[in-house]
Amino acid sequence: MKHFRSIDEAGADGIAKLLDLADHMAEVNRRPNPKVPALRGRTVCNVFFEDSTRTRLSFETAAKRLSADIMNFAVSSSSVNKGESLRDTIETIAAMGVDAFVIRHGSSGVPWQVEQWTNASVVNAGDGWHAHPTQALLDCYTIRTALNRTSSFDGLKIAIVGDVKHSRVARSDIRAFTLLGADVTLVAPRTLLPPAVDVPTTTDLDDVLADVDVLYLLRMQQERMTESLVPSLREYTTRFGLTPARAAALPEHALIMHPGPMNRGVEMAVDPSELPGAVITQQVTNGIAVRMAVLFELLGSGTDLEENE
Amino acid sequence: MKHFRSIDEAGADGIAKLLDLADHMAEVNRRPNPKVPALRGRTVCNVFFEDSTRTRLSFETAAKRLSADIMNFAVSSSSVNKGESLRDTIETIAAMGVDAFVIRHGSSGVPWQVEQWTNASVVNAGDGWHAHPTQALLDCYTIRTALNRTSSFDGLKIAIVGDVKHSRVARSDIRAFTLLGADVTLVAPRTLLPPAVDVPTTTDLDDVLADVDVLYLLRMQQERMTESLVPSLREYTTRFGLTPARAAALPEHALIMHPGPMNRGVEMAVDPSELPGAVITQQVTNGIAVRMAVLFELLGSGTDLEENE
Amino acid sequence: MKHFRSIDEAGADGIAKLLDLADHMAEVNRRPNPKVPALRGRTVCNVFFEDSTRTRLSFETAAKRLSADIMNFAVSSSSVNKGESLRDTIETIAAMGVDAFVIRHGSSGVPWQVEQWTNASVVNAGDGWHAHPTQALLDCYTIRTALNRTSSFDGLKIAIVGDVKHSRVARSDIRAFTLLGADVTLVAPRTLLPPAVDVPTTTDLDDVLADVDVLYLLRMQQERMTESLVPSLREYTTRFGLTPARAAALPEHALIMHPGPMNRGVEMAVDPSELPGAVITQQVTNGIAVRMAVLFELLGSGTDLEENE
Repeated sequence: MKHFRSIDEAGADGIAKLLDLADHMAEVNRRPNPKVPALRGRTVCNVFFEDSTRTRLSFETAAKRLSADIMNFAVSSSSVNKGESLRDTIETIAAMGVDAFVIRHGSSGVPWQVEQWTNASVVNAGDGWHAHPTQALLDCYTIRTALNRTSSFDGLKIAIVGDVKHSRVARSDIRAFTLLGADVTLVAPRTLLPPAVDVPTTTDLDDVLADVDVLYLLRMQQERMTESLVPSLREYTTRFGLTPARAAALPEHALIMHPGPMNRGVEMAVDPSELPGAVITQQVTNGIAVRMAVLFELLGSGTDLEENE
Repeated sequence: MKHFRSIDEAGADGIAKLLDLADHMAEVNRRPNPKVPALRGRTVCNVFFEDSTRTRLSFETAAKRLSADIMNFAVSSSSVNKGESLRDTIETIAAMGVDAFVIRHGSSGVPWQVEQWTNASVVNAGDGWHAHPTQALLDCYTIRTALNRTSSFDGLKIAIVGDVKHSRVARSDIRAFTLLGADVTLVAPRTLLPPAVDVPTTTDLDDVLADVDVLYLLRMQQERMTESLVPSLREYTTRFGLTPARAAALPEHALIMHPGPMNRGVEMAVDPSELPGAVITQQVTNGIAVRMAVLFELLGSGTDLEENE
Repeated sequence: MKHFRSIDEAGADGIAKLLDLADHMAEVNRRPNPKVPALRGRTVCNVFFEDSTRTRLSFETAAKRLSADIMNFAVSSSSVNKGESLRDTIETIAAMGVDAFVIRHGSSGVPWQVEQWTNASVVNAGDGWHAHPTQALLDCYTIRTALNRTSSFDGLKIAIVGDVKHSRVARSDIRAFTLLGADVTLVAPRTLLPPAVDVPTTTDLDDVLADVDVLYLLRMQQERMTESLVPSLREYTTRFGLTPARAAALPEHALIMHPGPMNRGVEMAVDPSELPGAVITQQVTNGIAVRMAVLFELLGSGTDLEENE
């Protein structure tokens, strides 16, 4: 695997391999000294054209645990402000000796453009509304470990709730969950659903609650209200938020997931720390292991993972 | 010691232990290669909700000298701007695997809140007007080494001059200096003194000058003038600034200290590089050793400090 | 060599030594693990008072390849905003234990001021319109390797085209190229030439094209137009830009260079990736080797470069 820009690029076999590798990385992370020399001498460059401290820190931590060097290219303080083209920016950084670009950009497809300008590996850390494959991978890994699924998601019922239309997380999750065999249902106001989807949709959250294994809440952006896509956040919460009553209606074993950052009082109208099924901080923890797996798969050369740094 | 959020949390014994450990760290810092592997595999996260390049760099340098990994969470580029709560921010970073949070925040008490949301150690790098214990510790260490005091500050006369009311440095210094046995006097306009204090106060700097062992100048903020707490900075300098005449009135052995950054021409109306008793750059240098001591005490496990990395 | 603030400070012998050392560093950079322990335990501090992600990343990468620790002092988030003087800022950072300052500042001469306030080495990463010696060094190294020159630039014809007046790159390049024996011609509108220069000048680019070994294009800043120094960017391109016709008029062996970031469609009115003589990405790559050479020369102690970290 040279790049990881979408779930489809990895395919079912690639996803399975990365999830197994993440198991190994999670074991590394539980050691007293959670570092291995696997990527010593490799350089990973974070290029974030959109703010995202949490995703950037997650990749940075993953790279450091594998002993890679990390460069952070912050766009606000960059030549991009002087009118340099994206291509020149990427070619310049690549010329300094980068082995992998981790790129986030507001436009869909940018990671595929970047590939044409460099020999380095490209990891998609979110492109427009299109894809966020490492988030989908960590979501799969979280479900797999929390529900003790080892091979497939056959028969698993997952409801994704909220602003699917503008969500790259939802798009990648739908691809990954269905690829592994799960039955995915989208729950959203019609204004927040994409024009065409391959999975069942509904506007009635209460109708699906009692029968899900995983309830995946999406972040509800304030701006959807100003765009008149929802009448009000209060109205949204009433129909699509996780309230205490809805939490009580979930099966006991059901997981509650969220990609963060949460809007407490909006889509998350209950304190998740009081819900036994909430695995939101586990998602963050698993993000490190999963991103270590991706970087190791793209840049590693069969180096032994056992030895501490 | 699990946390270091105030001088009182460490207590007299804790302070003494940290100062002895700082001696050891200062010795490490004098080596040709000033690094030890003591905290290899540990992760320290700087979370600064207020700008402070100097304090952040000091902690970062201290962590690197001990071979810890460092994460910098810059608030301006963070999810906090998307309305994420402080709790969710801390829990998210903690979930990535942080061993210690170094936190600066504009509100008093935040480090105690943070402790409730994470198992990591918490170091207070300044909370509101409340406390800045590592500054007090480096001030104690600077006095101890510069005046060759080994055990206690008994009989030492220290004057703290300036805006005590709005100063977390002053609050932590008063606690630390008195805990070690020093006699502390506060010198300030009445508008810049807190309502209740346990130590003597005066508005007459010239009255105390001839009899101090340490003259500790606080930073005079421009905004105190706009708040009408002082009539003008010039007036402040006339009554409370260290002028050449006042410097000449100090005992020969007296130390001149300042937490930085200085306002030259205001509280520091003389060039400190021409005063033999000024130990202001030593304070900065000692800050590294003292913060190494704190991080090692909180996160170390008796690892040998002798061996170079 | 203690500092590297201008080409003249190094002199012809110093430049020759650094270029030979850069050869060695380029070899390190081609290794599977491009790191050496040469500067382990040394600390390099980037202090950038002007934005420059590419130069900062280049020094940062160079320092990491030599296993030095790197501190980044970002001015926007610094005490400088609180009115701290440059001197206090430098003395404070120096007191934390810095071995070399890499400084960029909008005012000419600042690196010479900085030397007076610290015992650390000082590298000039660009001061006002004055000098940018590591850029000149990487330009020399790029010419030397691309044209297979081993010792001198005797007989080499180099045209520097564009806004020489406001360019520290041009100033340092002129000094370095002539020091090595090249014949330098400046090509620019009279409004963009400095009042006095030691080398031939012309306003007719087409007149020199057929006879150059190196065509060095300077960045054309948008603001020169608002300052009425050029009538329009289109007019500038017509007279001084590298158009396809001009590229065709160059000798086959001629190099095309640019310090970046390029203004495509202005001074670079052709796609450089289609010009065999363009060595612009090589300049960036060589920047790492050259800056490693400078840091090693200033801070190294004869440590063996062979051994991988």
